[in-house]
Amino acid sequence: MKQVLKIEKEVLIRFNEVDSMGIVWHGHYVTYFEDAREEFGRVYDLDYLTIVKHGYYVPLVNIDFSFKSPLTYGDRAIVEITYLPCETAKILFSYRILSVDKKSVIATGSSTQVFLDRSMDLVLYTPDFYLQWQKLHHV
Amino acid sequence: MKQVLKIEKEVLIRFNEVDSMGIVWHGHYVTYFEDAREEFGRVYDLDYLTIVKHGYYVPLVNIDFSFKSPLTYGDRAIVEITYLPCETAKILFSYRILSVDKKSVIATGSSTQVFLDRSMDLVLYTPDFYLQWQKLHHV
Amino acid sequence: MKQVLKIEKEVLIRFNEVDSMGIVWHGHYVTYFEDAREEFGRVYDLDYLTIVKHGYYVPLVNIDFSFKSPLTYGDRAIVEITYLPCETAKILFSYRILSVDKKSVIATGSSTQVFLDRSMDLVLYTPDFYLQWQKLHHV
Amino acid sequence: MKQVLKIEKEVLIRFNEVDSMGIVWHGHYVTYFEDAREEFGRVYDLDYLTIVKHGYYVPLVNIDFSFKSPLTYGDRAIVEITYLPCETAKILFSYRILSVDKKSVIATGSSTQVFLDRSMDLVLYTPDFYLQWQKLHHV
Repeated sequence: MKQVLKIEKEVLIRFNEVDSMGIVWHGHYVTYFEDAREEFGRVYDLDYLTIVKHGYYVPLVNIDFSFKSPLTYGDRAIVEITYLPCETAKILFSYRILSVDKKSVIATGSSTQVFLDRSMDLVLYTPDFYLQWQKLHHV
Repeated sequence: MKQVLKIEKEVLIRFNEVDSMGIVWHGHYVTYFEDAREEFGRVYDLDYLTIVKHGYYVPLVNIDFSFKSPLTYGDRAIVEITYLPCETAKILFSYRILSVDKKSVIATGSSTQVFLDRSMDLVLYTPDFYLQWQKLHHV
Repeated sequence: MKQVLKIEKEVLIRFNEVDSMGIVWHGHYVTYFEDAREEFGRVYDLDYLTIVKHGYYVPLVNIDFSFKSPLTYGDRAIVEITYLPCETAKILFSYRILSVDKKSVIATGSSTQVFLDRSMDLVLYTPDFYLQWQKLHHV
Repeated sequence: MKQVLKIEKEVLIRFNEVDSMGIVWHGHYVTYFEDAREEFGRVYDLDYLTIVKHGYYVPLVNIDFSFKSPLTYGDRAIVEITYLPCETAKILFSYRILSVDKKSVIATGSSTQVFLDRSMDLVLYTPDFYLQWQKLHHV
């Protein structure tokens, strides 16, 4: 049976992430989503250095974010990241940023990563190590 | 007759925008797109300060970017931004980042902005100043 | 008797903070030092919002950082921030970034902040709330 | 006779560089100074890629900045960078940020870079290519 792989990571909004309107500048959400993706990698053994060790890079090729409600300086929020199973040689995640009480949605998003080999060429097959990772985690 | 409003802005890739893979980190594209959007505002009198003067903020509520080919340190590229006409109270842009010879596409994207009033409440009608701006520019 | 006010904050180096040499770009240290300064503010009731509530801003007017040894992706390090007592209307801190085992020094630094009033004018006297804060903390 | 090597680079303050006080966050000055240093490198053939080609890295080991007067969104300013001759194996620069009319000083600073070889070890002698560069430019 398929598992849903999902983790949550708390972020604390820094002074330098807030713009002159007093709210977080949208570009910083890219970092919040990356923080959650890196934490996911550490928890589920799919981190950047493990992937590099297997001979691959996994650059982002698409990001799509929507902002529902603003964050301000000193706010805490929960970034929830969910692994999306996919038949092709891609790594897909969806994201939700929630208020700490989880009662409201602050932002949603998704990202797509592809595999490049050591010569930075696109890999069209799913790498072995990633097939094994999928099997191990029932996704 | 409707006009297509479009400008181009050159960017030069900084040392600190390149990651350990030797390519531009995807988060910096948000800034390249914003640089083009700000330049568009200056050229077509739709800049942030003009909008604030009319009593509105126009935060981004959606961004969607795709990366086709990497940029590296010292590269120059063209960011092309196109205004997308829209019947509702939104500001839509599409983006393309092109190699300087314009022969290859490096990234594409789009953004959506909404209007907030001075109390940071969402404005559902199209503000007068923006209707006039649209008329003036035949969009 | 005077107290030494000092706290430590752990940082985890993000992928996007590492440059093409594989080490943290020096500009990110400004953020690590600010993270420690904000944590100090939360611990000792001298945070940005408290200061603003009393009618002041405390922008940085000087920073001085030295880098002894590099940090790389995935490293954890300790940022140690120490409050430096000062007779004039300034807030002074010194900083050390240490390896997690505290056996080596990665960077050192200092910062100076001044007081501005609500009109953004420089305040030459030490504000009352800050004198009281100093008394309360024996510094 | 010794020459003074100096260039000027204009910067335009971006929306995302301004904080909730409405002024440029101090951390962005590191980037303005780096922009000037990179421009200096392009003008005087001492750019990062040339240095790497000769087998060296030149990380910053010290920065020291003072902020005299704030910059706000949309401001233009001049970053002036001056090469400081030095007998040891270091690259020293001083910086001034001036208002566009050059009548007021916004910030000053200095930076020190050292030479690392390809194994990232500190180089205590002045590299040949750099001695030749100094001779060529009479510094």
